[in-house]
Amino acid sequence: MNQLEVCFSPDLIHLHDLKGKIVVVVDIFRATSTMIAALANGIEEIQTFADLESCRAMREKGYLIAGERNGKTVEGFDLGNSPVAFLEEYHEGKKLAMTTTNGTLAISKSQDADEILIGAFPNLSATIRYIQSQQKDVLIHCAGWKGRFNLEDSLYAGALAKSLEKTHSSDDDGALAMKTLFEKEGHQIKNYLSKASHAKRLQNQGIEKDIDFCLTFDLYEMVGKVEGDVLKGMNF
Amino acid sequence: MNQLEVCFSPDLIHLHDLKGKIVVVVDIFRATSTMIAALANGIEEIQTFADLESCRAMREKGYLIAGERNGKTVEGFDLGNSPVAFLEEYHEGKKLAMTTTNGTLAISKSQDADEILIGAFPNLSATIRYIQSQQKDVLIHCAGWKGRFNLEDSLYAGALAKSLEKTHSSDDDGALAMKTLFEKEGHQIKNYLSKASHAKRLQNQGIEKDIDFCLTFDLYEMVGKVEGDVLKGMNF
Repeated sequence: MNQLEVCFSPDLIHLHDLKGKIVVVVDIFRATSTMIAALANGIEEIQTFADLESCRAMREKGYLIAGERNGKTVEGFDLGNSPVAFLEEYHEGKKLAMTTTNGTLAISKSQDADEILIGAFPNLSATIRYIQSQQKDVLIHCAGWKGRFNLEDSLYAGALAKSLEKTHSSDDDGALAMKTLFEKEGHQIKNYLSKASHAKRLQNQGIEKDIDFCLTFDLYEMVGKVEGDVLKGMNF
Repeated sequence: MNQLEVCFSPDLIHLHDLKGKIVVVVDIFRATSTMIAALANGIEEIQTFADLESCRAMREKGYLIAGERNGKTVEGFDLGNSPVAFLEEYHEGKKLAMTTTNGTLAISKSQDADEILIGAFPNLSATIRYIQSQQKDVLIHCAGWKGRFNLEDSLYAGALAKSLEKTHSSDDDGALAMKTLFEKEGHQIKNYLSKASHAKRLQNQGIEKDIDFCLTFDLYEMVGKVEGDVLKGMNF
């Protein structure tokens, strides 16, 4: 049986050995949900950047540029970090450069992994099917919030741990705890997460539609995968 | 209403502001449980050390010395990190120098707090009563395991958050998650924690009695408190 473990923050990822593992990077509100929305709506590939200026420079190469800081679209950028904005038009064959507060950092800190996937509820089942086809250990790397534990990324980890329990054992305490949490609250995830600090921040910004999208299961039969330094969608 | 937050690892404590707060340091298996057992059995004060040699040097000053590394008593030390060993004789008025893997580190990283308490299940209700008498914000600092999240410290945080919900709001995601976990599993905590990685390690070492002690609620009406550089018990 393969193993599954959870890391709650990029600030703790150095404690984990990533070699040979599939690392699933998750930043539910909203970076990884937005990436999945973008790839499902025509974006051919996404390049992620930790800093704003490297991202901005990609416009000259014909990329759409997307970025937020503290929940707001960066001035002069085409898009922010709203998944719903990507649903409004089909970006056939376009390339996207993207930077976010927490998600990009988590991806860049996952580079020792054998494979890096992008986790989001709208493609949860496809991600599960893909992992089960690979027979590798899994580490779920929660982007968290400014280094801290957050509820939505952790609940996603619990959902994944629960769905994988026939093929991946969760001896890891973080995985056990989040599996229990998902068993208790998974049936009413929107209601439960409405208490979470990040959801409250987003509600205050009037972006309920984004929250609804980010917490919708299985819209896409597509896996988001980091290949080299770009992120691509793969039907699965 | 006061606030309550949870930090799952000493490696994340730098993300929290401790000023003005009561920090409850918790290392259920077994450092803080052992400290409470010691203070309830005659030990007048405890001094904690991050390193072995400083602790060993205290013997010359008449201290009992206690320490473990990787779950075993350090060679030449009077005691290890077994709470049950402290119940065997009454150490009237003796002083104790103690070093452990994770717990001591968490205490030393909590020094900016207004007050530091030592958390354990055997004095949970006394700790709750004391906190409610103080009207301060609370941060529960889980010692974790080599920097990682662990289940037993986190469940204690959930128990504390649950008991304090009338006086301390848990807007913090970590507190919310652990309160939910305690609501679901608190009635069968020994059974649930038998799945946890640390409990398995202890079971392999044949110290079931310690596990039972560490998970017993409310044996003592005493609060463990750090005062200056020593730790004392206070009837409450």
